[in-house]
Amino acid sequence: MDWLDSIKWDRDGLVPVIAQERGSKDVLMFAFMNREALARTAELGEAVYWSRSRQRLWHKGEESGHIQKVHAMRLDCDADVLLLEVTQLGHEPGIACHTGRHSCFFQRYENGAWHTVDPVLKDPESIYK
Amino acid sequence: MDWLDSIKWDRDGLVPVIAQERGSKDVLMFAFMNREALARTAELGEAVYWSRSRQRLWHKGEESGHIQKVHAMRLDCDADVLLLEVTQLGHEPGIACHTGRHSCFFQRYENGAWHTVDPVLKDPESIYK
Repeated sequence: MDWLDSIKWDRDGLVPVIAQERGSKDVLMFAFMNREALARTAELGEAVYWSRSRQRLWHKGEESGHIQKVHAMRLDCDADVLLLEVTQLGHEPGIACHTGRHSCFFQRYENGAWHTVDPVLKDPESIYK
Repeated sequence: MDWLDSIKWDRDGLVPVIAQERGSKDVLMFAFMNREALARTAELGEAVYWSRSRQRLWHKGEESGHIQKVHAMRLDCDADVLLLEVTQLGHEPGIACHTGRHSCFFQRYENGAWHTVDPVLKDPESIYK
């Protein structure tokens, strides 16, 4: 069986993907891939997602330069979630979030509210020209 | 605004949740919560998910004893994904996967196929009596 057929695509033909940074092991972001995005990711060695808002392939970093080099891909026990081991290129430390932060998970729960706890590393206006 | 209202629940009233182990920073599993599951998680300090297959609240470890103590909860930039920092109790090293493995992400892509690369730490038959 083709390795792409092993995946249990959801009702929209997508699979959720977690991107984790090599080295720091920080979880950087969460996105989706369709079959074509995953095939492209494997070919390129760079993360290509499916943008649900734009309904098209999204080669991460195509605008920002913040490419994700993919070192390894893992599939979970139910074959319906992927975990990528990546290096976040284009800035040091890596910027995965469109807000200019290292990780998309920058809001932390405390005392009944979400608090922004991580800094903006680069102004998004200068990232997306 | 209530912290639960800050979350962009999907069309099924769910939010995807990534559980990451404190210390090792291994990504252990991926599941979903509904509003009640998340409220219970915050109250208990232990992960309570929504089981889509069983259509009910699932206090992780209720059968296996493999409870997830929750140290921190983070929300992503789009407010539609959660990241939990957990300690996986009940076995050393922690077993998060129903297959008796440490993590659910035990299949690795190599040369056009998925390969099981992590060992079973405990026979599932002895976990789920």
